[in-house]
Amino acid sequence: MFKDMAIPYPHFENNIMVATSNSSSSIPPVILTQDELKKIAAYKAVEFVESGMVLGLGTGSTAKHAVDRIGELLRLGKLKNIVGVPTSKKTHEQALSLGIPLSDLDSHPVLDLAIDGADEVDPNLNLVKGRGGSLLREKMVEGVCKKFVVIVDESKLVSHIGASGLAMPVEIIPFCWKFTAERLRMLFEDSGCVAKLRLGSNGEPFVTDNGNYIVDLYFKKDIGDLKAASDSILRLAGVVEHGMFLDMATTVIVAGELGVEVKNRYYWSRGQRNL
Amino acid sequence: MFKDMAIPYPHFENNIMVATSNSSSSIPPVILTQDELKKIAAYKAVEFVESGMVLGLGTGSTAKHAVDRIGELLRLGKLKNIVGVPTSKKTHEQALSLGIPLSDLDSHPVLDLAIDGADEVDPNLNLVKGRGGSLLREKMVEGVCKKFVVIVDESKLVSHIGASGLAMPVEIIPFCWKFTAERLRMLFEDSGCVAKLRLGSNGEPFVTDNGNYIVDLYFKKDIGDLKAASDSILRLAGVVEHGMFLDMATTVIVAGELGVEVKNRYYWSRGQRNL
Repeated sequence: MFKDMAIPYPHFENNIMVATSNSSSSIPPVILTQDELKKIAAYKAVEFVESGMVLGLGTGSTAKHAVDRIGELLRLGKLKNIVGVPTSKKTHEQALSLGIPLSDLDSHPVLDLAIDGADEVDPNLNLVKGRGGSLLREKMVEGVCKKFVVIVDESKLVSHIGASGLAMPVEIIPFCWKFTAERLRMLFEDSGCVAKLRLGSNGEPFVTDNGNYIVDLYFKKDIGDLKAASDSILRLAGVVEHGMFLDMATTVIVAGELGVEVKNRYYWSRGQRNL
Repeated sequence: MFKDMAIPYPHFENNIMVATSNSSSSIPPVILTQDELKKIAAYKAVEFVESGMVLGLGTGSTAKHAVDRIGELLRLGKLKNIVGVPTSKKTHEQALSLGIPLSDLDSHPVLDLAIDGADEVDPNLNLVKGRGGSLLREKMVEGVCKKFVVIVDESKLVSHIGASGLAMPVEIIPFCWKFTAERLRMLFEDSGCVAKLRLGSNGEPFVTDNGNYIVDLYFKKDIGDLKAASDSILRLAGVVEHGMFLDMATTVIVAGELGVEVKNRYYWSRGQRNL
């Protein structure tokens, strides 16, 4: 019954870059919480994992389910010889506690697969990531994996980057952060940009794993050409990295009330990443 | 006699972007040390300083002379109401000891003038900076000054960026630095690039004012399009900033055995900096 009701998300229908397939048979006919949806997407992603792989381990509430699941399959002996490369100190600790063997990019400069969540997914499978604050290490790891599987609940699908009204984070050096925040705001003035320094729970500036600050950008309008926007941000001295992950996801798994949808980017576009 | 012998540096002759003028009357007919040449260039640059200016204060052995001179003119009452914005902790300390009033980019997001040295100057007045390790703060400050006067001795003039055989520094985050260094090297593999982590005098990695590392790149051949090279470097996650200062210098003062040469970039090209 639910299989028949499963529909592709309408704004993906005409996108020639994206191939979609649906699989909803595992969804029970009950209202699912957002966390349950995240778990469903995460478990589906872990089906891509094979013994012997070097894996990028994502950070955040959705990725956490995937890391838990990988740990469980290792413990059960269903996966063997996995090496994990964590994308944050937090994930490092989680993976250690699960007994997942760990390494880093220095030892493994190319990865087989990474699994991670995202804060926004646009129709071209471009992402916003980093509301959890780990965007830089995530981008380093996920930029060099042969396959990058993104796991989200359907609330993360947007018509364009910034459309959720939530933040697009930019990691900056602490030195003269107000100056850098203002220059970022001015870059996107035409899109009604607001720039806010991210604060931690103690009211002090949030500090990343790399000792930097995060400026959250909010856009009232579509910022247009994302690659041009990316270069403009990166050219500002004081900026370390931003949370737009362009042309990086190879697969996006979306869990919704009506089922799990798997969206694949065509393989040819991977050539842009020079792997 | 020396005025007659003063010649424009040959590789600048056909460059339509650069206007040159010569002034060698202050050079005595003796062999000058490199440090004396640096001092001559620095003192010439300080002639651009006027009372009431907000000044970017450079870092390094040449810039140090300029900061000393500004302190001296303040003490003598020949300059008044100067505000300095230092480009490093070291220059901050030097300026404090000289009694130069200091501020920062948060309070002064636009500066009147910055004076700083450079490690290489190419025929288009593009620079390599940062062998002293302060490239990031220098670029932040010098990117928002109305006039940027670069002071060098003639040994810094090169036919193309990298031609001195010395380093083009890149500031990177410490996390997985080997990985990032290797990706940098691969970017310029066709130019015979060698990438080396900079070490401090204690044999440990050199750490910048921002808590980052420096990878020094050495090129065997011309790397070609500098703006394309800049964007490629900045797009690497893990890179914070690089030492190429493109389209930034408005004036370069070159002190040589045959005199002081003042090279000006035409004003119109400043429009690219959106000041």
